[in-house]
Amino acid sequence: MIGGGGCAFIGPVHLRAALMENDIELVCGCFSRDYQISLKTARKWHVPESRTYATYQDMLRREAQLPTGQRMDFVAIVTPNNVHFEQASMALDLGFDVVVDKPMTFSLDEALRLRDKVEQTGLTLALTHTYSAYPAVKEMKSRVARGDLGKLRRVFVEYSQGWLSQRIELQGGNNAGWRTNPETAGKGGCLGDIATHAWHLCEYVTGLRVEELCGELHTFVEGRQVDDDVAAFLHFEDGVTGILQATQIATGEENNIRLRIYGEWGGLEWCQMEPNTIYAKWLDRPTEEIRMGNGFANLSDLALWNVRVPGGHPEGFIEAFANIYRNFAKTIRAKASGQTPQTECLDFPDVYEGVRGMQFVETMWQASLSNGKWTKWVEQ
Amino acid sequence: MIGGGGCAFIGPVHLRAALMENDIELVCGCFSRDYQISLKTARKWHVPESRTYATYQDMLRREAQLPTGQRMDFVAIVTPNNVHFEQASMALDLGFDVVVDKPMTFSLDEALRLRDKVEQTGLTLALTHTYSAYPAVKEMKSRVARGDLGKLRRVFVEYSQGWLSQRIELQGGNNAGWRTNPETAGKGGCLGDIATHAWHLCEYVTGLRVEELCGELHTFVEGRQVDDDVAAFLHFEDGVTGILQATQIATGEENNIRLRIYGEWGGLEWCQMEPNTIYAKWLDRPTEEIRMGNGFANLSDLALWNVRVPGGHPEGFIEAFANIYRNFAKTIRAKASGQTPQTECLDFPDVYEGVRGMQFVETMWQASLSNGKWTKWVEQ
Amino acid sequence: MIGGGGCAFIGPVHLRAALMENDIELVCGCFSRDYQISLKTARKWHVPESRTYATYQDMLRREAQLPTGQRMDFVAIVTPNNVHFEQASMALDLGFDVVVDKPMTFSLDEALRLRDKVEQTGLTLALTHTYSAYPAVKEMKSRVARGDLGKLRRVFVEYSQGWLSQRIELQGGNNAGWRTNPETAGKGGCLGDIATHAWHLCEYVTGLRVEELCGELHTFVEGRQVDDDVAAFLHFEDGVTGILQATQIATGEENNIRLRIYGEWGGLEWCQMEPNTIYAKWLDRPTEEIRMGNGFANLSDLALWNVRVPGGHPEGFIEAFANIYRNFAKTIRAKASGQTPQTECLDFPDVYEGVRGMQFVETMWQASLSNGKWTKWVEQ
Amino acid sequence: MIGGGGCAFIGPVHLRAALMENDIELVCGCFSRDYQISLKTARKWHVPESRTYATYQDMLRREAQLPTGQRMDFVAIVTPNNVHFEQASMALDLGFDVVVDKPMTFSLDEALRLRDKVEQTGLTLALTHTYSAYPAVKEMKSRVARGDLGKLRRVFVEYSQGWLSQRIELQGGNNAGWRTNPETAGKGGCLGDIATHAWHLCEYVTGLRVEELCGELHTFVEGRQVDDDVAAFLHFEDGVTGILQATQIATGEENNIRLRIYGEWGGLEWCQMEPNTIYAKWLDRPTEEIRMGNGFANLSDLALWNVRVPGGHPEGFIEAFANIYRNFAKTIRAKASGQTPQTECLDFPDVYEGVRGMQFVETMWQASLSNGKWTKWVEQ
Repeated sequence: MIGGGGCAFIGPVHLRAALMENDIELVCGCFSRDYQISLKTARKWHVPESRTYATYQDMLRREAQLPTGQRMDFVAIVTPNNVHFEQASMALDLGFDVVVDKPMTFSLDEALRLRDKVEQTGLTLALTHTYSAYPAVKEMKSRVARGDLGKLRRVFVEYSQGWLSQRIELQGGNNAGWRTNPETAGKGGCLGDIATHAWHLCEYVTGLRVEELCGELHTFVEGRQVDDDVAAFLHFEDGVTGILQATQIATGEENNIRLRIYGEWGGLEWCQMEPNTIYAKWLDRPTEEIRMGNGFANLSDLALWNVRVPGGHPEGFIEAFANIYRNFAKTIRAKASGQTPQTECLDFPDVYEGVRGMQFVETMWQASLSNGKWTKWVEQ
Repeated sequence: MIGGGGCAFIGPVHLRAALMENDIELVCGCFSRDYQISLKTARKWHVPESRTYATYQDMLRREAQLPTGQRMDFVAIVTPNNVHFEQASMALDLGFDVVVDKPMTFSLDEALRLRDKVEQTGLTLALTHTYSAYPAVKEMKSRVARGDLGKLRRVFVEYSQGWLSQRIELQGGNNAGWRTNPETAGKGGCLGDIATHAWHLCEYVTGLRVEELCGELHTFVEGRQVDDDVAAFLHFEDGVTGILQATQIATGEENNIRLRIYGEWGGLEWCQMEPNTIYAKWLDRPTEEIRMGNGFANLSDLALWNVRVPGGHPEGFIEAFANIYRNFAKTIRAKASGQTPQTECLDFPDVYEGVRGMQFVETMWQASLSNGKWTKWVEQ
Repeated sequence: MIGGGGCAFIGPVHLRAALMENDIELVCGCFSRDYQISLKTARKWHVPESRTYATYQDMLRREAQLPTGQRMDFVAIVTPNNVHFEQASMALDLGFDVVVDKPMTFSLDEALRLRDKVEQTGLTLALTHTYSAYPAVKEMKSRVARGDLGKLRRVFVEYSQGWLSQRIELQGGNNAGWRTNPETAGKGGCLGDIATHAWHLCEYVTGLRVEELCGELHTFVEGRQVDDDVAAFLHFEDGVTGILQATQIATGEENNIRLRIYGEWGGLEWCQMEPNTIYAKWLDRPTEEIRMGNGFANLSDLALWNVRVPGGHPEGFIEAFANIYRNFAKTIRAKASGQTPQTECLDFPDVYEGVRGMQFVETMWQASLSNGKWTKWVEQ
Repeated sequence: MIGGGGCAFIGPVHLRAALMENDIELVCGCFSRDYQISLKTARKWHVPESRTYATYQDMLRREAQLPTGQRMDFVAIVTPNNVHFEQASMALDLGFDVVVDKPMTFSLDEALRLRDKVEQTGLTLALTHTYSAYPAVKEMKSRVARGDLGKLRRVFVEYSQGWLSQRIELQGGNNAGWRTNPETAGKGGCLGDIATHAWHLCEYVTGLRVEELCGELHTFVEGRQVDDDVAAFLHFEDGVTGILQATQIATGEENNIRLRIYGEWGGLEWCQMEPNTIYAKWLDRPTEEIRMGNGFANLSDLALWNVRVPGGHPEGFIEAFANIYRNFAKTIRAKASGQTPQTECLDFPDVYEGVRGMQFVETMWQASLSNGKWTKWVEQ
């Protein structure tokens, strides 16, 4: 693992998620630029000092030299956006599969180059768009795909946080610093950090691509150097349209993600803060509460593959994360032994979704400068 | 009352709302163009045949000739949009105060002329934007006004219905016919019918006016002659921005109105389908459930004036409607006796809000034709 | 109307409920023992001074002497429990139908005598067990009756309030005084005031009678003279069992009534504070949200008769009350004209339910003195 | 680990929970009486065949013979109730600390003997009453302990499931078989399986012991050999009283646990199916939503110790389980190195709670045979 030391939030989540299925072990790490912090983290997590490295370059090189079966099998990158590219590139160059946190890179250009590298090496890259890994989201995808809603019409997605409604990046000691610094975060603040998740949910569940969008970026908190609020109208393929709103200044909101999709005959609604329920709404019968894990919800294979406990025993964020790790692990294990991975195992965000994520950031950025014009999404 | 006969939905609501405080009686009516239906309605509601009129012109003229104390005091207009203007105008001309359903008129031009007529006659016109008459909405207005949230930043309003997700206007026998016919509904379908409510909620609660907007009108149901879906980004005075979404093709939704407002220090959320609760969200303390009617919610005078029962005894749509009627009745009664109405009694939507409502329809219409450009709101 | 003056809560609710359908007018009243308060109330409600009476005896006698068509048609009694009997008795003796608030009388003995009087006079008495008048509760009754749940097994009912969690009866100026005084309230505090509602909901919805019970009465607030908390295990006919809990010391609760019924194949749940939804739970399919008023909920005739507005427009406590008044009014009107009332109109609590309510109070009282023994319900 | 093979539900949950903190590894197991199933499970979980044992006796003996540092540190027992005692006893005799699923033993007698064994060996036994390991439940405990609610009055706990509303134990292939067989389950069906959890929540959160109870056991499903529904009135120390209801025939319910506690000044409510929120209700201010993980909820140290992710990222059942394992692991590690464990680490259910759990089963059983009498809880 690269990153995850100190007060980081997402590193320990990656670790717990990776461990949960007893399919992955933590064998080495470079948890911080500060070697002392790295060592402290290593001790906490029972990583031997011999495999706690001072730099990620050191780690990648020395692990690559270890014999097969002894060296690490893949690397998890849980650092700020601006170093994802160099770390992932070097890992791929040295033959390691990669899990990287989103957004995949600092810029679209880096994303495109990383895609090329993945294609050249034939290795596997997983991107942790966690929210699409909840069983309920997978169930929505399945139901949309099999036509339960009829022709789709409208997609509403929102992602509301309030933790940046004051300029807390000035205080230090929290996760706001690098996220609001254009040199570490990239072009987008809220845009890269959470609007990309919202966009990804839409494309994942509908199976449709955004073709053009019209939107605004706002910076509400005075002095802040990046946007803290995003709004967009989306035009998808096939005449489907949507509204995306993401904000980090919705004071008092925690991590409120809500996805709704309406078609001719029905609608589906999901809220991340109670992630085990989908509300299925119909033209001609009562709203149903589709619950994960109970025997009678008639869940799709895709959802069932990602459910761990019976109905009524809530699963949370770490389990969603664990679904990505499990699928990734099973995929690289299959590939390593020359087998084709099971379809369900291939269900994790990959480098192509990473590229589209950076295109979303880029398109949204251009749209925001155009005074409300519709901006085409350019594929590259 | 003009209208309300047959299978109409909103007429009986007006009646029940008007009666609830024992301050208003139903004394005469022209409930339908079909006199037989009108008579049948009259019998159901105990209106004497002698004051059940065949045409509204007849009613207004003959009531005007009755001696004071005997003739009706005001007229309630609950007919399709395209006849509001002529009916309200004639009523004002003959000296009657008016309650009229929204949108106020068929066109902006009519709205402006009606405003002039109200100003000339000095009479009172109330417009039934019911949703802003819920106590909880009034409480939100009060809290925003006294600065609880700090400087406002973001307003999210949505109004989702699903009953028009099929082309039921072809079936007849329902309320869809005139609403989807441009000759009776006017320029907007969903726009005039429900987006105007959503817009009104925003301006009512924030006390701020929309200055420009950028948006789309959609017609998702094939063959339909008016829009059935509305989306807009809103720029209010003082740098406040918002998103408005209104749709009648959100399959499975009933009458889902949700208003959220975020400022520097807090946020407020309200959903019409459970109208007795506001969620107050804060930067530094837990979300509070502000409930109407209980002694310890510390409600504003404005809200308390509109609450009828103790906490835990739910109030609904008819009571909200009744708040408009009560305030209107107390206002015209005060004016009739030469007194100044109490401030709380003047709290009902009037002809100026009716004009702005038609300007909203007009501006939105223009914006939708502009391919995403920001369109200024022109005051007239 | 007898009672309802001053700061009373329930009187104005009765009035609004009665007026809502334009089927009932307020023509006379004795609103308070204090004639000045009575007059003030009369002015507010537009009752002429000539028909505002100083005593209820005076009112009943003088109204009885007025010619038919001019005198009041029935009397609504909204006074403390201890005077219900004498007022209702006198009204019946003078030929007036009666609406009376619950519990019907001060003691079981009075209830039995009132039942005899109703039988002798052939007049109609309605008891305002309001909560069973919500459309959703009627829908539950219908579904249970037609066997949707299979054989019933378990009934859970609770009624939680917190307003008496301190000894506020000492403060005066509120509704706590007479409710906690055994001389006005009768044997039960919480028992008579709200546990009777909970009991009534169970018998109304299941159509089954309680045969024996085991329970406790508690007085948690020191110095209080009546119980403020009730708990009982219930044995109904046919082997159905239940738990009833009612409390007025659940600090922070408003008026939280929750009814759940489980049978072999399904369960139903309803909460009064959001009264327009039933949750239907099944053995083999997802939980459904049965909503009042929308076209596709496939509601029973009994529920539809009591619904006023389309789905998504919430109905509340006053509308539930109005259902009792409407049914009562239609019943006495039918009887007055020698017709048989429609079945739906006869659906309001009557004197027999009033008697059973007082038997519930009596049985519960005995059970509470028996140190946990099962106590038989004795019919009289 | 003993048990957990085949289609077992709880074994994999134990494993994931144990692994999550990278503090515990799965090193050996006897996952089933059927060695083939055991081997298959071992392969899935990467346990070497050499440490996959055919019998638990074999496992305990052979592991005990391995050198320190190589042999397992403790054993997790996830088998049916009737074998807990022999397995746990033997493990303790051989010097292993133990985690055992609840109820701790088959009978009270076994529980008392196990307690003696724990005392004699000085080893550690943890009992997985998972629901009290949710951070929100710990927060409730802390708030009650520091007096936020004033003197406690009322405790309402319920645990509703519906999966046994038909006689599915006859079908085989599910978890119903041994739970409804008195030879494997012990005296209680629903009583031992889930009512013990409900009882434990009450004592854990209030810090008070039940002193006497009055209640009923029911078997609603014809032919079933154990109870499937439990109801009890509880008398705690200090005059606090409560109602406990647990049922497995509440058709359509999943795993609905709800705990409410009311004191003089406030109340707290928690529902397991959305476990990250507590509702705090007050005499004099609005209900608050206390959410885990956000910075401003002002959580107690006890709760914070058990929270893994920031507010809005839901934690679930497996994380609650993991809290028990983490605390247990840290405790035995501290003891192994001669240190005193941190207070927070000692916060897991132990053998004394296991004994009380079996006393609850016994007392409830006796109460149910007494025709409603109050039955004293006898400490032993």
